[in-house]
Amino acid sequence: MRYSRIPDETIRRLPIYLRGLILASEHGQKNISSSNLADYVGVYPWQIRKDFSYFGDFGTRGVGYDVKKLTKEIKRILKLNNEQKAALIGVGNLGMAILAFPGFSIYGLNITAAFDVNPKKIGKKIKKITIESISKLGTIKQRKIKLAVMAVPRKAAQETADVLVKMGVRGILNFSPSYLVVPKKVKVITIDIAMDMARLPYYMPVS
Amino acid sequence: MRYSRIPDETIRRLPIYLRGLILASEHGQKNISSSNLADYVGVYPWQIRKDFSYFGDFGTRGVGYDVKKLTKEIKRILKLNNEQKAALIGVGNLGMAILAFPGFSIYGLNITAAFDVNPKKIGKKIKKITIESISKLGTIKQRKIKLAVMAVPRKAAQETADVLVKMGVRGILNFSPSYLVVPKKVKVITIDIAMDMARLPYYMPVS
Repeated sequence: MRYSRIPDETIRRLPIYLRGLILASEHGQKNISSSNLADYVGVYPWQIRKDFSYFGDFGTRGVGYDVKKLTKEIKRILKLNNEQKAALIGVGNLGMAILAFPGFSIYGLNITAAFDVNPKKIGKKIKKITIESISKLGTIKQRKIKLAVMAVPRKAAQETADVLVKMGVRGILNFSPSYLVVPKKVKVITIDIAMDMARLPYYMPVS
Repeated sequence: MRYSRIPDETIRRLPIYLRGLILASEHGQKNISSSNLADYVGVYPWQIRKDFSYFGDFGTRGVGYDVKKLTKEIKRILKLNNEQKAALIGVGNLGMAILAFPGFSIYGLNITAAFDVNPKKIGKKIKKITIESISKLGTIKQRKIKLAVMAVPRKAAQETADVLVKMGVRGILNFSPSYLVVPKKVKVITIDIAMDMARLPYYMPVS
């Protein structure tokens, strides 16, 4: 079942809830109230309840949500119940940091390939991943890799995205500060750290 | 004037609009309609109009928004009309990528200091910034640095945040995958790339 009415903003929060539920589970909790989950994730309890209402209510008054059941349901909605393979394109400083990042596995995400243009990098092994030449990017199709993380320079971004789309990639996490033109069937999430940082001063007191 | 009723989600989108307006201005546009701005930023026109309605309407029917006026107003709301200095804590792979990142300046953000624990890194110069010992972190107070970017390992995160808060930092962009406990007056934005990536499979077709 596909919940087509779930707003993007709710989808954006589901991984946050998932992490909170995993933490609660590690603390031995079998049930969790929306206000308890709110403490873990920093989202208002009413917002949590509203978000969960989109895909059926898992809560029992006075008992809260069943941690295990809710974890499973969110994973199912996000299609994280099976491992998702991803390719990293661009192994500069940022790419290296991404390869070393330990946080993907709790979501069932697994970077299984890395590509770069720099001959000095090709063949190097970082955490079990051998960096391959960008000329081998065409192999991701037969390797059934549907997700990609792009950490390439801005000028290479669109060209890289075009190849990824041709190779069957359906989701791109883009770190290049550029707008990518892709077909509708491909989802792009662009992370612009300057944009995130630009929100901070708003919350600062007037000095 | 402080617009206390502006929702966080609107604040989150303001830097996105700002970038769109800057692009439009570079293309020589003096006025822009909400649907034209939507093309630049990938947000629905109705959402743009609703967001702008929180701080007064700058649009004229049939003419659209005054690009220059709106840019100035958004900058003022976000407190980006004056340059904001920031310190980077942790110059590993991710920290290096952040230092090299060219996108901060369009928002008036300026990383003016960088700190690390690694003696091999201390004293090195990256893009005009000389990496300082973490033991010098106390100097950011007299340097009037109110923003910080944290790219430190998870185990050092809370301790680093505590020092930053003590030194008067009021906004933290946190890349450590950990929840930071800070006083209410300090705004923390945590970037967890795994969490962003965890949203991607949802949008993929069932295979």
